[in-house]
Amino acid sequence: MLIKDASIMQDGKLLRDVNIAIEENRIVGIDPGLADGSSDGEVIDASGMLAIPGLINAHTHLAMTLFRGYADDMELMPWLEEKIWPLEAKLTSEDIHWGVKLGCLEMIRAGITCYNDMYYFMDETARATKEMGLRAFLSEVLFDMRPDIIATTEPFIKRWKEDDLIVPALGPHAVYTCSEETLLKSKEIAEKHDVMLHIHLSETRSEVESFAKNCGQSPVEYLDSLGFLSGRVIAAHCIWLSPKDISIIAERKVNVAHCSISNHKLASGIAPLDQLQMAGANICLGTDGASSNNSLNLFQEMKTTAIAQKCAHSRPDLFRAGEVWKMATENAYAAFRLDLGLRAGALADLALIDLKKPWFCPLTGDNIVSHLVYSAQGGVDTTIVGGRVLMRGGVIPGEEAILDRAQQQFQDLVTR
Amino acid sequence: MLIKDASIMQDGKLLRDVNIAIEENRIVGIDPGLADGSSDGEVIDASGMLAIPGLINAHTHLAMTLFRGYADDMELMPWLEEKIWPLEAKLTSEDIHWGVKLGCLEMIRAGITCYNDMYYFMDETARATKEMGLRAFLSEVLFDMRPDIIATTEPFIKRWKEDDLIVPALGPHAVYTCSEETLLKSKEIAEKHDVMLHIHLSETRSEVESFAKNCGQSPVEYLDSLGFLSGRVIAAHCIWLSPKDISIIAERKVNVAHCSISNHKLASGIAPLDQLQMAGANICLGTDGASSNNSLNLFQEMKTTAIAQKCAHSRPDLFRAGEVWKMATENAYAAFRLDLGLRAGALADLALIDLKKPWFCPLTGDNIVSHLVYSAQGGVDTTIVGGRVLMRGGVIPGEEAILDRAQQQFQDLVTR
Repeated sequence: MLIKDASIMQDGKLLRDVNIAIEENRIVGIDPGLADGSSDGEVIDASGMLAIPGLINAHTHLAMTLFRGYADDMELMPWLEEKIWPLEAKLTSEDIHWGVKLGCLEMIRAGITCYNDMYYFMDETARATKEMGLRAFLSEVLFDMRPDIIATTEPFIKRWKEDDLIVPALGPHAVYTCSEETLLKSKEIAEKHDVMLHIHLSETRSEVESFAKNCGQSPVEYLDSLGFLSGRVIAAHCIWLSPKDISIIAERKVNVAHCSISNHKLASGIAPLDQLQMAGANICLGTDGASSNNSLNLFQEMKTTAIAQKCAHSRPDLFRAGEVWKMATENAYAAFRLDLGLRAGALADLALIDLKKPWFCPLTGDNIVSHLVYSAQGGVDTTIVGGRVLMRGGVIPGEEAILDRAQQQFQDLVTR
Repeated sequence: MLIKDASIMQDGKLLRDVNIAIEENRIVGIDPGLADGSSDGEVIDASGMLAIPGLINAHTHLAMTLFRGYADDMELMPWLEEKIWPLEAKLTSEDIHWGVKLGCLEMIRAGITCYNDMYYFMDETARATKEMGLRAFLSEVLFDMRPDIIATTEPFIKRWKEDDLIVPALGPHAVYTCSEETLLKSKEIAEKHDVMLHIHLSETRSEVESFAKNCGQSPVEYLDSLGFLSGRVIAAHCIWLSPKDISIIAERKVNVAHCSISNHKLASGIAPLDQLQMAGANICLGTDGASSNNSLNLFQEMKTTAIAQKCAHSRPDLFRAGEVWKMATENAYAAFRLDLGLRAGALADLALIDLKKPWFCPLTGDNIVSHLVYSAQGGVDTTIVGGRVLMRGGVIPGEEAILDRAQQQFQDLVTR
């Protein structure tokens, strides 16, 4: 496949009329003069379009897209106890299937090519994701109220370890829902199979305060004392951190999945990204689930992260567009050890964005990153994962049928 | 014109298969069984679409859309002194024309049918806006460094007073840029011609503190002492307010144009909307200029307002979707005395939104407002102002030519 006459970003500058050659699931060449050497002869005209490497959604619960708009504007505990948990108790693999596909539709439309998920029914999530063609890191959620799940993690890893799109992982929910035994067992399995560990960490003030009261240390200190923290950990939220916590996170090379919109909507708080950044922590961006966001869109997440952090620290010059763009791309590629980027040899996970939109005007040589972070509003035309075209010209084959089916599935779930 | 088989919102609920009849610039009927009694016989099939009354952008500087992405991530004073003011010093009416048209394109795409603007070259702004077909409240910016402008305001009002789309207004910039004489003269002219007063109020902490230091009272107290404050005032920002300021704003029925994204991006601060609301103030939403946002999209503004306020007050149950929706619609209709809404007799300013998008799924009878505020991402299909169709099927006639021309005009401006 040849993507012809695209614009790309190079060191924040716009470079026009570039051809990108894709062979099977990888980029094999990228150059202005490149001819099509691919076997399939497929050519995508990308004139007037910007090619970006895929965005990575570093924290979500994708099947919960089925709960979008089901319960908003509520305090956390009534929201969970009265709305979310009763619905989750009734979930079937069929619900998961359509919730995941619905979520995939939205991410494909937003140029997200890979997501990191923690939820239930992960085999079904993997199947639905593969059918949609996205890449995903999947972990069945582990907590002590369901002690049976941990025994399923190794078989799950073995089933999916060699898959081209699905990367199995371990997902101990949080320090306040998992015993020391569960945390240590998760870590042991993750190390044995060399997979990631996905955990919620220090999301709410009350959770952190009550943990400290009961255990005499912060959740971060506690996990560190267990030897749990390392570069294979993706820790979602990380809002209520002490200076010592921040040092530990940076030193242990823990990857932070920052979820700005969810943190604001649930009033969880504003993460100290400035201090995390200064300490050298690797920060990625996640949407969290669509029941607390309610979108799955990293363009929104980038803008909200940048402006909220500027305001929180009274510094409009901090969290510049280029830094925030890195959080959604390069930082995440490093966290997930993804061989991604617009360069020969990388996986062919990318999106084409229509530049002929008001929000990209005026376009100069060096304001493209600003436009992507601060003004882009939709306009993703084409999304490609592993060389497979998932959307072209804004059309995802079968989208309407999935929307109808997801709608029906939700109605079935709430009346079940 | 008949809009056929639309869905509409009624008290937050979804009502399907409604027909909307439009005669000249007004809605003449709205009912499920309504037949087309219009003379032009034009029918718009709106099945699968939601009809909403037009959104009102209560504060912007539209021609500055030409500066989008020109200067970001800077402190306020260097941003103004090094970037914005030097560019503004070179502005011609040709720049204004294309900047305004570019801004109109973006607002039409976002279902905004009317905007409230303060800037330079208002006759040119009016002409460009009329050509694009939007409704606008326009005020030439007044400040003491340009004492000549105030003499142009009455002729401007007279020229445009009877126009069907353009509503002239007075725009004294702020208390720290306008003398008492300018403020009083503005008020006098506004009262004489019964037009609105558009002013920036208490946007930055330093501006409010230095005003208090010099004058012994807050900007709000000062304006009140002049008798300036009334229901004809639209005050943009209103961030740094004392409890007394808040009482005055509510008591005088001043309309607040809250600009959440700009306030965050410039790190100006978070407005005390909770206290303003409790005091009974009328709150509307504005985007501010695209040089400090960088979008002109009230869907973004609604979401950011809701989530930022929830977080600022640690109350996820405050600033519910329905309340924030009102800020972009009904509150603004009241502020600007606009006869708007989906009802017979109202001006035919409305938008049709495609509901067959992932972010509207699942759709129940009562989550539509939540979807509009928290998950809607583009998908405005049709925008109509005063009965004239400005966009249909996502197509705005002449859009590409405007984008090309605006791009060229910006390049001309920066190299001039």
